[in-house]
Amino acid sequence: MTTRPIAAIILAAGSGTRMKSDTHKVLHPIAGKPMLLHLTDAFTAAGAAEKVVVVGARREQVEAAVASLGVRIAHQAEQLGTAHATLMAREALAGFDGTVIVAFGDTPFLSAQTIAAMAARLDAADAPRVAVLGFRPDDAKAYGRIIADGDGVIAKMVEFKDATPDERAVDLCNSGVTAVRAADLWPLLDRVGNDNAAGEYYLPDIVMLALADGDRAVVVETVADEVIGINSRAELAYAEDRWQAARRAQAMADGATLTAPETVWFAHDTVLGRDVTVEPNVVFGPGVSVADGVIIRAFCHIEGASIATGAEVGPYARLRPGTVLGEKSKIGNFVETKKAVLGKGAKANHLTYLGDAQVGEGANIGAGTITCNYDGFFKYPTVIGAGAFVGSNSALVAPVTIGEGAIVGAGSVVTKDVEADALALVRPEQTGLPGWAKRFRAAMAARKAAK
Amino acid sequence: MTTRPIAAIILAAGSGTRMKSDTHKVLHPIAGKPMLLHLTDAFTAAGAAEKVVVVGARREQVEAAVASLGVRIAHQAEQLGTAHATLMAREALAGFDGTVIVAFGDTPFLSAQTIAAMAARLDAADAPRVAVLGFRPDDAKAYGRIIADGDGVIAKMVEFKDATPDERAVDLCNSGVTAVRAADLWPLLDRVGNDNAAGEYYLPDIVMLALADGDRAVVVETVADEVIGINSRAELAYAEDRWQAARRAQAMADGATLTAPETVWFAHDTVLGRDVTVEPNVVFGPGVSVADGVIIRAFCHIEGASIATGAEVGPYARLRPGTVLGEKSKIGNFVETKKAVLGKGAKANHLTYLGDAQVGEGANIGAGTITCNYDGFFKYPTVIGAGAFVGSNSALVAPVTIGEGAIVGAGSVVTKDVEADALALVRPEQTGLPGWAKRFRAAMAARKAAK
Amino acid sequence: MTTRPIAAIILAAGSGTRMKSDTHKVLHPIAGKPMLLHLTDAFTAAGAAEKVVVVGARREQVEAAVASLGVRIAHQAEQLGTAHATLMAREALAGFDGTVIVAFGDTPFLSAQTIAAMAARLDAADAPRVAVLGFRPDDAKAYGRIIADGDGVIAKMVEFKDATPDERAVDLCNSGVTAVRAADLWPLLDRVGNDNAAGEYYLPDIVMLALADGDRAVVVETVADEVIGINSRAELAYAEDRWQAARRAQAMADGATLTAPETVWFAHDTVLGRDVTVEPNVVFGPGVSVADGVIIRAFCHIEGASIATGAEVGPYARLRPGTVLGEKSKIGNFVETKKAVLGKGAKANHLTYLGDAQVGEGANIGAGTITCNYDGFFKYPTVIGAGAFVGSNSALVAPVTIGEGAIVGAGSVVTKDVEADALALVRPEQTGLPGWAKRFRAAMAARKAAK
Repeated sequence: MTTRPIAAIILAAGSGTRMKSDTHKVLHPIAGKPMLLHLTDAFTAAGAAEKVVVVGARREQVEAAVASLGVRIAHQAEQLGTAHATLMAREALAGFDGTVIVAFGDTPFLSAQTIAAMAARLDAADAPRVAVLGFRPDDAKAYGRIIADGDGVIAKMVEFKDATPDERAVDLCNSGVTAVRAADLWPLLDRVGNDNAAGEYYLPDIVMLALADGDRAVVVETVADEVIGINSRAELAYAEDRWQAARRAQAMADGATLTAPETVWFAHDTVLGRDVTVEPNVVFGPGVSVADGVIIRAFCHIEGASIATGAEVGPYARLRPGTVLGEKSKIGNFVETKKAVLGKGAKANHLTYLGDAQVGEGANIGAGTITCNYDGFFKYPTVIGAGAFVGSNSALVAPVTIGEGAIVGAGSVVTKDVEADALALVRPEQTGLPGWAKRFRAAMAARKAAK
Repeated sequence: MTTRPIAAIILAAGSGTRMKSDTHKVLHPIAGKPMLLHLTDAFTAAGAAEKVVVVGARREQVEAAVASLGVRIAHQAEQLGTAHATLMAREALAGFDGTVIVAFGDTPFLSAQTIAAMAARLDAADAPRVAVLGFRPDDAKAYGRIIADGDGVIAKMVEFKDATPDERAVDLCNSGVTAVRAADLWPLLDRVGNDNAAGEYYLPDIVMLALADGDRAVVVETVADEVIGINSRAELAYAEDRWQAARRAQAMADGATLTAPETVWFAHDTVLGRDVTVEPNVVFGPGVSVADGVIIRAFCHIEGASIATGAEVGPYARLRPGTVLGEKSKIGNFVETKKAVLGKGAKANHLTYLGDAQVGEGANIGAGTITCNYDGFFKYPTVIGAGAFVGSNSALVAPVTIGEGAIVGAGSVVTKDVEADALALVRPEQTGLPGWAKRFRAAMAARKAAK
Repeated sequence: MTTRPIAAIILAAGSGTRMKSDTHKVLHPIAGKPMLLHLTDAFTAAGAAEKVVVVGARREQVEAAVASLGVRIAHQAEQLGTAHATLMAREALAGFDGTVIVAFGDTPFLSAQTIAAMAARLDAADAPRVAVLGFRPDDAKAYGRIIADGDGVIAKMVEFKDATPDERAVDLCNSGVTAVRAADLWPLLDRVGNDNAAGEYYLPDIVMLALADGDRAVVVETVADEVIGINSRAELAYAEDRWQAARRAQAMADGATLTAPETVWFAHDTVLGRDVTVEPNVVFGPGVSVADGVIIRAFCHIEGASIATGAEVGPYARLRPGTVLGEKSKIGNFVETKKAVLGKGAKANHLTYLGDAQVGEGANIGAGTITCNYDGFFKYPTVIGAGAFVGSNSALVAPVTIGEGAIVGAGSVVTKDVEADALALVRPEQTGLPGWAKRFRAAMAARKAAK
């Protein structure tokens, strides 16, 4: 970590036309989190004191997304280039006297480690005036080149179209991410011109200006996967795929079995224990924590849930936010839970909806049970005591309490509390009409024949 | 487009042994449509005036598949080669005086554009006598070679086994697809001999005959994926995969987010709007149209459904044919719909079956609701008015109408119409037997111990 | 097959640290079967007379897994190398006078064919003293090399670190699997020393000892996929993937259509007929047999089930052990079956749980039907006669019998047997409270506004 404070300037003023979306490009999610928040979270993890996002169109969308995150918004009315965009953050950073790192909202995988490394480079005794982030892609064709020596000291930055054949043969490319002290940044930016084909003010020009001043600039290197840029839905899918591949590998290295890793999708914050088994086709949304030894069977969809040791989930379990599964509890097929807390060993194995429900230790929820938690206006709680047994196809009309050890007969519509250890029955007499079915079939067959 | 009419001859007389199937090879589906129909649809799109399929065994299967499509059937009793098979279409095309394009029933991705391009080539002022469709595969090993100049004028067609080392080094291969004017085709075919190792009459021989006559033959080139041939289930799966990959890329280019594109399966006619999000593992069957801004969550299975703007579907929603979802309506987990029309903002979020049902604007269908639309003989409609609220675990015994704004109490079996704004209840009194559960457990534990 | 008896020594004493698991490494499953059992089953198929597993830590886990399989356990208290581990089996094989094949518990794909081939090599007239199993991986870097002539006669075995550049250029690698006659094995092992960097006794040293004695040793070659070794969860996933890829290819070659083969997971013993169609995302657990012409739609999870000709399953069907589906029967979406036997043409299409149930020919089980087979202590059977019709949302409280041709009204809780051809109804009167819903909404809206 660095001692001098860090400020982030995140450029997000591009129009993102190729996304063909009404949503701002940097708000499209990867691993269930908007790509912009991957970046702001990385800066937060690196200890950044200030974060400024430079926005053009759809400013209100970005503001809403970062409202609660201590991020400031700067506005670039016209798109005049990356140097110009960076300058738009000057007012927001007035008085800031640390290291500024300029990043890109559509390059979301920049890591806290890299941010810290770049900042540390500017804090060192022999600190350069500018540090840029370089990478070596498999195919360098489209990128600007960095001509540097073995210590990363930069001799030249060159756009591909201006590069000589020898320069084009260099595979070290410029990601655009740039670190520079605030005291240097603004004067350098003021000197950047727009005397180029596009008539734009380019951020990398500050490197050449620093070199012209006789100062040093250095390159910090990272892997290509960290600077994946996203300009289309296909690139968004590619970035998601790279993120998931890395996360799956980590899960396996940490001691989870993924039967078919390529069919498990994690969210940005999924926590998975040791000796967890995840069968094929499981989707984790945000906010999930899975303890050691849990078995998650195929076709589960899990969001906002905490699952304790030894629990079994699925197949086809849909756990929604607020689900807390106790030790050795079981949620089976075609079961949905929402704000449902299950005690140790409690079970809901088949075709059930548990919403706004507490289920005590060892309780057994029969197939087809529905908690009727909503009356069209309000939600109400259902409380099921430890050891209770709810018969199949029951409807529990909340608010309602089933006492400890109570039994609810199959097919009951329970509207009143059931006391502990009692049997609740809501059932009319069964009546039979002998021969009726035979007569019905004969009549229907005749009607069908007549059609 | 060409001005001279086009006729298709589609060869489908092969026995397809490697498929190991009781179904004719060309009727195996790709993207939910028999491969033969991919071809006939392409010819229709190219404006073909006539389509003839040449069939050997299992003729009746092919006839049934194309019955309503204006396609004629010709029969090849003995498999004597592609030239012989083509000749079998002569009678069906008696009097046809345009351009004939011979294609293959097991090469289903031939596009309307390519068909039109081949036909146009024969319509040009400097038209050749024959045009063949060539391609350059990654591995050319098995294919016959086309020796042609830079303008596509053919010098020689040669089978691989007869080719010299220099000819084998050529990577331009013959797909077999051939365009020739009807007036030329039949005389050329009559001249094809069977003096070869297999004793078969080969269609490509007409090119060499044309050249021998001093006429010109040309190659039209296309990409290898357009002439994928299918002889086994593995090749069928490969073709499906190639088709899906192209369709997924198109969906993303058009502005849809596919979180995990490799797990979304489209049908041949799926229509997807802009800013649609499709989560992992979604299967589209035929007849689906999805408007802008719709969210389709994981594990959905959707056939014959129209989904309006802003609707949310899934996870685990199964929409069957005749489903029409209004704007901002919601179908949630473990819900099946069939011939179900939902108004704007209507919701069926959990464990429900809606069959032969109309659901009005803003109506809320509780968890576990079943429309009982079938009595073993006939299907009957259920009509639910706007703003109605159907309590959980209800059974609506059709034909039945729930009036606008009506409420159905949880667990009701509704057999009679409910008037607007009324409450319908079908529920006996709840009775309780204090201490019964405790005594039951004691008795059962004793019985279990005694076993 | 060989005439001399075969004994297997399977080394499984490694600590398996990289798995990060409380389960012994060789008990992690592939295709639903512990990897050790893949090996013991291969030896059984090859006719092995004796099987000994050499175990270190977690011996009791391995003992439990092979308890019923006629496998003996030998214990290696200290990990002193593969030669030492092999020696631990001497007592268990006292008196055995055939061919011993030493294999590795974490290399589970060794086939019965290869075992037989190695044994046969030692039975031949010109039998060598030792046979080792070699393979040629894409990247040979890490493995010990086998220097052999064109007939597989070994000149030298060399560890990579000791190999010359010329030896390193050899791509024939040692899998470690070794065949040697029992009479030779023990004396050779006794002579192996531990004068090496690790201070371990290495099994391959017996080859060099045999050569030093003037005897011959040979290499038997196999493909690299047969000797995949598993040391981490990532390698476990890779091995699973390779197994599944081979099984999918076999299923297609046998005449099944897999729409998306990469999304179908087979178990070790899955049996699939001809003209079976499997849509995307189907998981087969152990014990499944699928007859010809069956359609398995997307998102099915099938274990311990037998499915007869022409049946249709899914989408979203979950068949559990003991499920037997008759000809042309149908199990539809969100339906779970367990110990359920369905007659010809019987149907359960929607949202149903059938447990411990017999369903007669042509019976129709309505949507939302639940068999209440469990009272918290015992399970009870439900018998549904041929041609019966169970109305939607019914609960059948077992033990109970629905007679042939009987009809159960929708929403019934059936606790008493229903006689053949009768109609059973369990339903109170429907009551209506006009205007109640309107007043309720007004009151609730007021309460909501007041909050």
